[in-house]
Order: sequence, then C-alpha cells, then structure tokens
Amino acid sequence: MNIREQAQKAEQFRKLHHGPRLLLLPNAWDVVSARILEECGHPAIATSSAAVAFSLGYPDGQRISREEMLEVAGRIARAVDVPVTADLEAGYGTTPKDMVETVEAAIEAGVIGMNLEDVTGDEEGSCVDLPLQAEKIRAVSDAAKALGVPFVLNARTDIYLMSIGPEATRFERTAERLRAYRDAGASCLFAPGVYDRETIAKLVKAVEAPVNILANPACPPIAELEKIGVARVSAGSGIMRAALGLVRRIGKEMIESRSCETMFAGSIPHAELNRMMMRRASGANA
Amino acid sequence: MNIREQAQKAEQFRKLHHGPRLLLLPNAWDVVSARILEECGHPAIATSSAAVAFSLGYPDGQRISREEMLEVAGRIARAVDVPVTADLEAGYGTTPKDMVETVEAAIEAGVIGMNLEDVTGDEEGSCVDLPLQAEKIRAVSDAAKALGVPFVLNARTDIYLMSIGPEATRFERTAERLRAYRDAGASCLFAPGVYDRETIAKLVKAVEAPVNILANPACPPIAELEKIGVARVSAGSGIMRAALGLVRRIGKEMIESRSCETMFAGSIPHAELNRMMMRRASGANA
Repeated sequence: MNIREQAQKAEQFRKLHHGPRLLLLPNAWDVVSARILEECGHPAIATSSAAVAFSLGYPDGQRISREEMLEVAGRIARAVDVPVTADLEAGYGTTPKDMVETVEAAIEAGVIGMNLEDVTGDEEGSCVDLPLQAEKIRAVSDAAKALGVPFVLNARTDIYLMSIGPEATRFERTAERLRAYRDAGASCLFAPGVYDRETIAKLVKAVEAPVNILANPACPPIAELEKIGVARVSAGSGIMRAALGLVRRIGKEMIESRSCETMFAGSIPHAELNRMMMRRASGANA
Repeated sequence: MNIREQAQKAEQFRKLHHGPRLLLLPNAWDVVSARILEECGHPAIATSSAAVAFSLGYPDGQRISREEMLEVAGRIARAVDVPVTADLEAGYGTTPKDMVETVEAAIEAGVIGMNLEDVTGDEEGSCVDLPLQAEKIRAVSDAAKALGVPFVLNARTDIYLMSIGPEATRFERTAERLRAYRDAGASCLFAPGVYDRETIAKLVKAVEAPVNILANPACPPIAELEKIGVARVSAGSGIMRAALGLVRRIGKEMIESRSCETMFAGSIPHAELNRMMMRRASGANA
C-alpha cells in the first residue's frame, strides 16, 4: 500500500465517525476473521489486542511485543480492502519517543488508525500522568502527520474499565482526560467500561468530539446510543470470545457425547473459505 | 521440552491409537483454541493445516511455508501439556531429504507426530509415485528414530478426497498405498474422503494397522466407527470452520440488525480467558 492510498483510507475511516450513523466496529484477530467481517459488509475493521494476544498465547495487557502485535495487524491490513485500525494497547513503551516509533511502525504495517490506552500497567491499576499522556498523543499525531497520513488516533482512558480512583470522581476525571486527549490531537475518545445511558449521554456532551463506547450487554441498544450521539461502538474481544465459546461447546460435545454435531451445524464449507483466501492470495492488494 | 519428555509424549499419543476407545482428535489453529480443547479434557491435540493457513491469510494446500506452519504448531505444542501432532501437508518439499529437514524441524518445534499427504499439488490432482512416497515416509521415520523420538507419522492418501483416478480402482489403490506406507514406518494411515460404513470397514481390515478417518456428516456415528475398528477420527478444519460460521452470523447481525446479541450469547468472559493464558505464560511449560 502506498502512502497516498493509506491517507485516503484514513480519511475514509475518519469520516465514518462523523456520519449520520454510529460506526459499529467489529474487531478481528487474524486474516480469515477479518476477511469474513469484510465480506459481511463492514466498512472498516479494528483489531482486538486481547484477541490477538490470546491467539498467540499471551494474556491481555501488553505481554506481547510491538513487533508481534503489528505483524498480525499488518497481515490483516494487507488482506482486506477496507481501512484497518489497530489496538496497540499503551503503545509499547512509556515515552513520546516510544510512541513515535510505534506509530511509524504501525503506518509501515499498513494500518490507518490506532487505540492508545493510558494505564501504566502496574498491578493496582493507575493512569499515566495526564500531561505525559497528552504529550504522547501529540507525538503520535505529529509523527503521523509528518508521514502524510491523517491517522485516526483513538485515545482511551481506563478510569471506568479498571475502576481507578474514587467512584464519585470518575466522570469528571474521564471527561477531563478525554478533552485533553482531544486537544492533543486524538480523533476519537474511548471510554470502555461506561455502560449507563445517562453517563454516556453526559460524556458525549462533555467531550464535544467523537466518543467510542465498548459493546456490552449492559449498554443501551445501538439505536439508542446513536440517538444520544455516540460516534463509535466497538466489539473489542467479543467476537473472538463468542467464537471460543463455540469451540468449547464443540470440544465438550466431542468428549461427553462422542459426537461432532455442533461442529457440523452452521460451519462455512472448506471450499468457500479456500476461494475466499485464494482471491486475495492472487495479489489483489499486494 | 527435552527429548525424553517429547519421546514420552509420542509414546503416550501412539498408545491412544491402540486402546479400546477410538481417538476422536480435535484440531486447533492457534494457542487459545488449543488451550480450550485441552481444558475440555482432550488427551491430545492436532493442528489443522487448512485452519492455520486461513488464519495467516493463505489458501489451503502448501501455500504457506514450512517455517510459518511450524511456528504455529510449535507455539501450540509449548502452550499445552498434552501431545501435539502437526498437519504438515506434503512435507514442504518433494525429496526424502526435504522430509528429513521437515521432521527435524517439527521435533525441534516440540510436536510428537505429523500428517504427511501424497498429493503432488498439481492442478488436476495426482499422487506422488508410490515408491517415492514410501521412501519419504521411511526417511521421516528413520530421522525421528535417530533423534530418539517414537514419532507418530500419520501417512495420508488423498485418492478418495480428491477423486483421483477411476472410481472403481479407488479402494484397491488406497489400500495398496496405505499398506505400503505402513510397511515404510507410518504409525497411522489416513484416508480422508472415505465416509461410507462398508468401505471404511473393508479398509480397516485391508490395512491391518491404525486407520484415521476424517469427521464428516456423511460418516456413521463415532460409536459405529469404533465398533468397526477405526483407530482415529479427526475434526480437520471443522472446528475452525464452525467458529467462523458464528463469526459470520455475528458480523451480519451487526450490519443487518445493528445488534450484538449473538456475540454476547455463549461467549467466554475476558477474565476467564486471561486467567487461562496467564497460567501458561507464567512458565509452566517453558
């Protein structure tokens, strides 16, 4: 992919955050999951860092290296036509200089956006100091601009998801951080762990920029989230975790009932998957 | 894993082909699918070459390199306690010397068995000359023995699966090949594409060694296959293809109904998968 094509894809992805419809974004973890989601008609695909980590044998939370994570994200980006944004956790480093290396490698890999979290990764769960996190976001944004890509940086705070700090202060601290991240150049602001309708509506108003919510059974329906102005809802590791739930039901049935019935039901034929992979292996996006 | 431990696992896996119960063997394609199948209680795990290829973005049929295939198989073998056997297609080469390199790399990667097909890979579908294929099998068997591993070689003929040659001759050619592969040192003989009860029963009698059948809705029930003496039934790419069928239903529902209901139903919680990966990342099998 050349930089001009990549810049166009970034722009195309950015626009999906400003249309009349909320962007319901599915997360893939390997090439075939991404190809299937693209064929369903999704206009963009994200990666899930948890799902990629599980697939390669790591727990979630930056146990995987930047290189391994981007190897998968790049493989996916090269295998589909739609824009691909990568979940790059806390950016694989701690300094603005680390962030520049990460975004340069991400653009080299072919992705047009990334998620960046603000947790330090220590046991108790705490956030990177706000000024440093803003500086890191600025560094990503500037580095992408210098490369000619209007990179879609999705800046995330985990205050709600990891229950960081006193509950009564969470909303204000979340809003403060997301506004600061927005001012530092982030295109979208992600607050996973916020599921309550009123809080989401208040947050959208407070941030005054595209807000990303993590899909959860506790969330209001998508149509409701769209109405209150949420720009993007992501599946996170949800699609992979559903697929693994089925793998477990199949594995148990094989042991307990000595049967493969669940495996046969609703599977995609081998020949169909082979044709799907063949089309791209012939170099359409090389 | 040291060679002694690997030899024990190979022996343990070989015994599963000679017990009173048929070995119903599930195939994984990444670490987390293998870990889940192990936790279901499966005493051994195979890899599916098609599933690994799809996951990495290749069509089935040796488009992937030996290195990439063994990288995944090795990752899986290091991440579970049960024996792991790898589907290594036609062995990534054409000569007995290539086979020696492949089995040495496979043992180095930590697997204790492999599948070896006899198709040439040309468009029409044809088999490698029988004497050459037998020589390749002998080479794999001798190389593994020299390394001290009683490697479980599952030698496969694709005469039925790929409808090679006149229909009336298929049974005899299959039986002839499988007997020759057995005499060349293969531990198990694989005839994918044979689904009919009578033919399977006749084949088991003709081969006089453990026979492997590919699970298919057209096959008799497992209990029936056990009764007629089948030693092993493998899932092939079936578990992955079922999981991908669910990925497609979820992806379509997100587009058509703007809902994630199917994704939420029956999924494994993030925390549970994280604990599952954490246990092994702490070095239990390092």
